[in-house]
Amino acid sequence: MATLKDTQNEPDHRRIAIDRVGVKALRYPMQVRDLHGTTHQSTVGTFALTVHLPHHFKGTHMSRFIEVLNAHGPVFQVNSMDVVLKHLLERLDSEQAQIDIEFPFFLEKAAPVTGMKGMLDYQVKFEAGAKRSGEFDFILTVIVPVTTLCPCSKAISKYGAHNQRGQVTCAVRFNETVWIEDLIRLVEDCASSELYSVLKRPDEKAVTERAYENPVFVEDLVRAVAAKCQEHPLITWFRVEAENFESIHNHNAYALVEGRK
Amino acid sequence: MATLKDTQNEPDHRRIAIDRVGVKALRYPMQVRDLHGTTHQSTVGTFALTVHLPHHFKGTHMSRFIEVLNAHGPVFQVNSMDVVLKHLLERLDSEQAQIDIEFPFFLEKAAPVTGMKGMLDYQVKFEAGAKRSGEFDFILTVIVPVTTLCPCSKAISKYGAHNQRGQVTCAVRFNETVWIEDLIRLVEDCASSELYSVLKRPDEKAVTERAYENPVFVEDLVRAVAAKCQEHPLITWFRVEAENFESIHNHNAYALVEGRK
Amino acid sequence: MATLKDTQNEPDHRRIAIDRVGVKALRYPMQVRDLHGTTHQSTVGTFALTVHLPHHFKGTHMSRFIEVLNAHGPVFQVNSMDVVLKHLLERLDSEQAQIDIEFPFFLEKAAPVTGMKGMLDYQVKFEAGAKRSGEFDFILTVIVPVTTLCPCSKAISKYGAHNQRGQVTCAVRFNETVWIEDLIRLVEDCASSELYSVLKRPDEKAVTERAYENPVFVEDLVRAVAAKCQEHPLITWFRVEAENFESIHNHNAYALVEGRK
Amino acid sequence: MATLKDTQNEPDHRRIAIDRVGVKALRYPMQVRDLHGTTHQSTVGTFALTVHLPHHFKGTHMSRFIEVLNAHGPVFQVNSMDVVLKHLLERLDSEQAQIDIEFPFFLEKAAPVTGMKGMLDYQVKFEAGAKRSGEFDFILTVIVPVTTLCPCSKAISKYGAHNQRGQVTCAVRFNETVWIEDLIRLVEDCASSELYSVLKRPDEKAVTERAYENPVFVEDLVRAVAAKCQEHPLITWFRVEAENFESIHNHNAYALVEGRK
Repeated sequence: MATLKDTQNEPDHRRIAIDRVGVKALRYPMQVRDLHGTTHQSTVGTFALTVHLPHHFKGTHMSRFIEVLNAHGPVFQVNSMDVVLKHLLERLDSEQAQIDIEFPFFLEKAAPVTGMKGMLDYQVKFEAGAKRSGEFDFILTVIVPVTTLCPCSKAISKYGAHNQRGQVTCAVRFNETVWIEDLIRLVEDCASSELYSVLKRPDEKAVTERAYENPVFVEDLVRAVAAKCQEHPLITWFRVEAENFESIHNHNAYALVEGRK
Repeated sequence: MATLKDTQNEPDHRRIAIDRVGVKALRYPMQVRDLHGTTHQSTVGTFALTVHLPHHFKGTHMSRFIEVLNAHGPVFQVNSMDVVLKHLLERLDSEQAQIDIEFPFFLEKAAPVTGMKGMLDYQVKFEAGAKRSGEFDFILTVIVPVTTLCPCSKAISKYGAHNQRGQVTCAVRFNETVWIEDLIRLVEDCASSELYSVLKRPDEKAVTERAYENPVFVEDLVRAVAAKCQEHPLITWFRVEAENFESIHNHNAYALVEGRK
Repeated sequence: MATLKDTQNEPDHRRIAIDRVGVKALRYPMQVRDLHGTTHQSTVGTFALTVHLPHHFKGTHMSRFIEVLNAHGPVFQVNSMDVVLKHLLERLDSEQAQIDIEFPFFLEKAAPVTGMKGMLDYQVKFEAGAKRSGEFDFILTVIVPVTTLCPCSKAISKYGAHNQRGQVTCAVRFNETVWIEDLIRLVEDCASSELYSVLKRPDEKAVTERAYENPVFVEDLVRAVAAKCQEHPLITWFRVEAENFESIHNHNAYALVEGRK
Repeated sequence: MATLKDTQNEPDHRRIAIDRVGVKALRYPMQVRDLHGTTHQSTVGTFALTVHLPHHFKGTHMSRFIEVLNAHGPVFQVNSMDVVLKHLLERLDSEQAQIDIEFPFFLEKAAPVTGMKGMLDYQVKFEAGAKRSGEFDFILTVIVPVTTLCPCSKAISKYGAHNQRGQVTCAVRFNETVWIEDLIRLVEDCASSELYSVLKRPDEKAVTERAYENPVFVEDLVRAVAAKCQEHPLITWFRVEAENFESIHNHNAYALVEGRK
């Protein structure tokens, strides 16, 4: 037995490079900029940190991923993402590094009539990749819960229309920062109604009627979001999914559109 | 190093009996009786098998739980539950044994107008306990997806009413078999509408209108199910929970009633 | 149609009181005290807020739960829990209120040899209940990931021993504050080894050898934690569960002990 | 209000085709062929059925997806997949249809020394796509739980080595049927040890020692599986992922290789 042999540094002869290797399902406190970057909110991220491994190395050094993360403090700052990626490229001696983070994000929203304020939660993902050559790729994904009211049900029924909570997953690449809250707003504007945390009776009345006046299928929803992404001056690529937790079925309705400009 | 020492059989001196010890999260094919026991359906169960361990034993024998299960064939038959429990009591030499199983269960339902048939899925749980003294305990739980339409939203809005998929979890003890399909039916009768797998337009119209005509809060839903359980001649104990995946919020409405007769 | 009729305030004639009714699965930013209360950490909680509803009321007022939470600011402070409970009792006009919160909690730990620091995450639950009569109940639960190494495998094998990640769920009631970090420490001391975020090679060697020197069954683990809870001067009740994600099986080993003093 | 207006059939003017639209998260009983097609096992699938929707249609007809599924009986037969896909193309009048199914699959395995038999569960996915032009695409994915023992930990420690449950996700395309059980076998042969349902003491000794004699990093594991896929005469594309639920950390080690021949 060698004393603290560096097994990972041994050569490998299978001639198979590894596309991604690293750590996954790592939870870490983080701060993300909100209100167009003027302030911060604290949240908890689930991280995957990976690099490309050339075919001639037996293994990567898993502990270094955590060291790089820790080197930037006990709370991860989203605006240090590029620096952390560069640090990963160097410390792991790799051509390519990737950081994926998923975290809850909160927006304060005012109820539509009473103006009563409450916090609504969204799930957000960052997928950031960097190459030693300087190339950089970033995908921002927001998962936005919405109300959808069925146009068919409304059209054929004497009264009422089935509606439900739905979920829009909108992923974008951009050539200049699109803020999380702006992308959420873009999505919410396409639903039968956006959701709220607190609704008093006058608000509930307004939201119920608004949803009834704006019926959408999942097809309408993904098309409306896709159309807005296409028109958006900063967005260069998008993938939009909508999933309705149908109130009349125990399965979901689903639609997906992907677009490049 | 002893040759295949039986570590589990050693004495333990901490004088702490273990309430439950065994295996968990074990998936196994199973068959469950349906249509009042006249036929069977195949499904997949997630099992927990445990026994009581007296304070003087260091450990139980985990492999014996699986052996007992396997001894009854490659597909678990629900009507062999008592035999398997007895077998566990003997094989593990324990005073008390418990089998918990959770599995998807399917009912064929006809759409309300066209009569078109489809399969609807439910989640079902069995919790069966036996003591060497002969005592036996059994809890049947059904998790039933339903439509709930909000009475408040209907009362205050010009048109429409928010509705959503909800979920009723109904657990019962009984003194003579209550069939899964009968307990599901009992729950579905209390919702704004039951769910279906296939709905053609005339069916969707019927379901939309029925829900609008039968608004229920989660409070109404648990009370209605509880009232039916109280009246039921065979049910001796019940716990009813309702959870609405609110279409206007990103959180859920929830209610719980427990009752004994 | 009544103008904004208060449906919830109507009488109910089924004579069934509701044990718990309110909101569930509500995510909200929060701060929790750490380091024995000298400082705070930011995290995200998943909340359930409920009250008891007497039989003569048709429904509770769901929006008031959120209002009460919001009234205490956009970030929930754990040390305001009693105040929020009292506020719920009053605002919902109930005899009994309950707040359940589940959240990730982080501890900075130093690797055993190199002393390199990293953040380890735990799942923590608070279950706090208050009655108008003044009674108060609080359960603190920590879910602690650990290493467990099998005593049987070690005893019978020429070399090596199967080990795995396990999870101890320890719930306690106490008569004077037991800090989260102290309860975590109590649990970690009973495992084959505690876990770490960063381990360099000398640390990995130390942890591997320590686990090999301290084999435990799930039975040993729950007994050791239970024994420490029994001896602890502040703890008045405990329930300890251990679950091993067995490295040699695709199911888990499980044990449970509950104790009162 | 039109009587049962066919809203979905209306024209749409946004000129955005929808890549995929249909139903998701639909559970349905199914039978899958095993033992090289000589027999069947019953299980429960979670289905997604989608089609491509041209830009000029407002919506698809969701109920038809379920009708197509139901038309083939109350239990889905995997060998009717092509027929169901063709049926979807026709019934939904689309250029492209897709069926994705995920289900638990069981293999009977004999313990390595005693030969004692038990059922081990795996998660399997089918992704089948068909175009009206006749093109057909099929991806088979198996998710195989395994033991991995750390080569570094073994090399540097006086005794023992940390090991854990890991999971290999292996997706392949092929030009002639590769059976699920053969792909599982291919993966299991690359791990420190395969898993078993029942292990008596002589078996546990054998498995512990075998794992100690065959240490693998996630990097080794994905490379070994990739190498076997490359050599396999029938496999034309593969993507291999390995994830270790590290016994010494609360995060996972992860590696991914994708290859085409």
